[in-house]
Amino acid sequence: MKWVDGGVTAPKGYRAAGVAAGIKKDANAKDCALVVSDEPAMVAGMFTKNVMKSPPVYLNQKVCEGGRARAVFINSGGANAATGKRGHEDAATTAAAVGEKLGIERGEVCICSTGVIGVLLPMDRIQAGVEQCFKTLSPKGSADAAEAMMTTDTARKEFALEVALSGGPITLGAIAKGSGMICPNMATMICIVTTDAEIGSDFLREALSSAVDASFNQIGVDNDMSTSDTVLVFANGACGLSAIESNTEDARSFSEALTALCRETAKALVKDGEGATKFVEIAVSGASTDDDAKRIARAIGNSQLCKTAFFGEDPNWGRFACAAGYAGVAFDPDELSIRLDEVVLTERGLVAEYLEEDAAAIMKKPEFQISVSVGTGPGSAVFWTSDLSHDYVSINADYRS
Amino acid sequence: MKWVDGGVTAPKGYRAAGVAAGIKKDANAKDCALVVSDEPAMVAGMFTKNVMKSPPVYLNQKVCEGGRARAVFINSGGANAATGKRGHEDAATTAAAVGEKLGIERGEVCICSTGVIGVLLPMDRIQAGVEQCFKTLSPKGSADAAEAMMTTDTARKEFALEVALSGGPITLGAIAKGSGMICPNMATMICIVTTDAEIGSDFLREALSSAVDASFNQIGVDNDMSTSDTVLVFANGACGLSAIESNTEDARSFSEALTALCRETAKALVKDGEGATKFVEIAVSGASTDDDAKRIARAIGNSQLCKTAFFGEDPNWGRFACAAGYAGVAFDPDELSIRLDEVVLTERGLVAEYLEEDAAAIMKKPEFQISVSVGTGPGSAVFWTSDLSHDYVSINADYRS
Repeated sequence: MKWVDGGVTAPKGYRAAGVAAGIKKDANAKDCALVVSDEPAMVAGMFTKNVMKSPPVYLNQKVCEGGRARAVFINSGGANAATGKRGHEDAATTAAAVGEKLGIERGEVCICSTGVIGVLLPMDRIQAGVEQCFKTLSPKGSADAAEAMMTTDTARKEFALEVALSGGPITLGAIAKGSGMICPNMATMICIVTTDAEIGSDFLREALSSAVDASFNQIGVDNDMSTSDTVLVFANGACGLSAIESNTEDARSFSEALTALCRETAKALVKDGEGATKFVEIAVSGASTDDDAKRIARAIGNSQLCKTAFFGEDPNWGRFACAAGYAGVAFDPDELSIRLDEVVLTERGLVAEYLEEDAAAIMKKPEFQISVSVGTGPGSAVFWTSDLSHDYVSINADYRS
Repeated sequence: MKWVDGGVTAPKGYRAAGVAAGIKKDANAKDCALVVSDEPAMVAGMFTKNVMKSPPVYLNQKVCEGGRARAVFINSGGANAATGKRGHEDAATTAAAVGEKLGIERGEVCICSTGVIGVLLPMDRIQAGVEQCFKTLSPKGSADAAEAMMTTDTARKEFALEVALSGGPITLGAIAKGSGMICPNMATMICIVTTDAEIGSDFLREALSSAVDASFNQIGVDNDMSTSDTVLVFANGACGLSAIESNTEDARSFSEALTALCRETAKALVKDGEGATKFVEIAVSGASTDDDAKRIARAIGNSQLCKTAFFGEDPNWGRFACAAGYAGVAFDPDELSIRLDEVVLTERGLVAEYLEEDAAAIMKKPEFQISVSVGTGPGSAVFWTSDLSHDYVSINADYRS
């Protein structure tokens, strides 16, 4: 595996665009993005479990049931969520406009919308955005598309990875947005993955599901699950190799690469978490099951008190112990051990002897790990989270813009 | 029912004290409290569900199983949680010291500790605190005791209520602490309730359980459930009336009074929530069951994005809709209606026509209500919460003091 440039247009046969269509208040800010595969592609998706799923999420779920798509259009500046019947019509109209331009059915066009919930989209501007995107589509358009997806994000998220399969190389690329409303299942986020590998629909779904479980479902910024979470993966076969069959070495290589790409993207979302000054890995082991370990890791990673302690660079591990204790998982308190990088804070239920300044020094680092063991079981999990800072409050207490 | 002064010493036959024993860094800050019933009393308790229950919680559970107690000793400045075997020994030693002073078994003494988790108690100071408390015990000692329980609390919480039963009046009193780590089941809090009513053990438990469900289990400040949550109610029968029998008018009057007292105390905790500038009531109706309604109300009340919107005085109701959607309760999005006091924001899934300034004006008030209807079911619930402010972050990011 080799990290390469080019994001979502690094794989062969994809073009992308990102333009400013006046949906965001700042008229110069890009707010419409388009990613197109030159040839028909397989598509798989994973979506938010929120009851208030946005109309675009419903539309994408239907497209993914069909298993084929050619394009995804994304707008920022409005989530088209909690918008009722009009919202569904607007998503369908946008898909139809993109489909017409490509000369394909609207059933092969995905739509993502992100921004404030509960506001109708300005459809004249969306239409203009579609037009402009088609005028500027380019095999080097990934960065513009990544920029056009951003809301409170402070940095573009773009990654690409080259993998050698038995017959030759394939490439995977991703662009993503997400900074607040970040919560497992999934983060409040949109991520578009492209690959030029040739892959059947079933294996593509399976690979995506396992990659998302090990990446986007293991991060948190604020424990708020959005109405719009969407991860889409397109596979157009433009690499020219034969199809990847499941249960082969190539299938494992592809799955590994997709997971690595999703993990890197997921970590980038946390690092750009609203107001984040810390990137913290919570590693839990010794639980009865992986699922129990995940719950404990999430409880610590989502605790406001742990997150303010991260921000305050305070090794107040009692808060980590407390959050582990309310995760809804049974364990023996006398088996609880907590380490901060290499410093042991508590060992099998007994307060350890450590130097406060050693623990404090680790908390001052921009990235550190909290490892928690709750027994001798085989269950383990890793979760990535950020801190809760004044800037988080400022960003989210600002009147909608 | 009539609100009266005197807190936990308003009912007959109780004395209380609060002293500074040097456990808190500020040597003048009160940190040890004692509440004593002159005569043997019935006791019932409800406790945190955290796996990391503190040793005092275990001790109190055992006392409450017996059903009788005479005293509760409380220290702030250290939670005696995640302290292993030594923690259990320290709790037992403290109970024995109090018991010796009173000439009773230590099995009739409750202990509460609150403060930083994972730190051993300075037992010499605790012992000194017990001594000093006994020297200053007074039938007017409630305010001192309430003050000695405070950690990040900015105000004492003391309430008392007089109720006329068929045979004459009884009185109930309460003191409580709690400001952060406030989360349903229960809030991170300690509340001591006293009454001079004569009540059997079973009915006392039953009345407490229903009062806590309708009060402390319906509030949130930061969704962190502590290791030390404890509500204790003492009933010493000093009013001189005959015992309250269950399923009588008097039993209903007592239950109502206990619930009113707990609700008032719970609301006081939220109002003094760490950094709180708003007191928000979330009223959910139309759910299939009360339990579903509670989940939705809690999801909104605990959402960081809703709470920062409260702080920002931004009627960004899309966040309320989003939180309702991830509460884990199925409902039809086309049935969702949201009102802010009297302003309708969305009505049965359709964005309502309202004046932004009308909604914004309500959010500027120190107290307001969000009502959410999700259908036509009989389930409803009310939840009280505060906002997430810069001060919350400052208070909790401060290095432990």
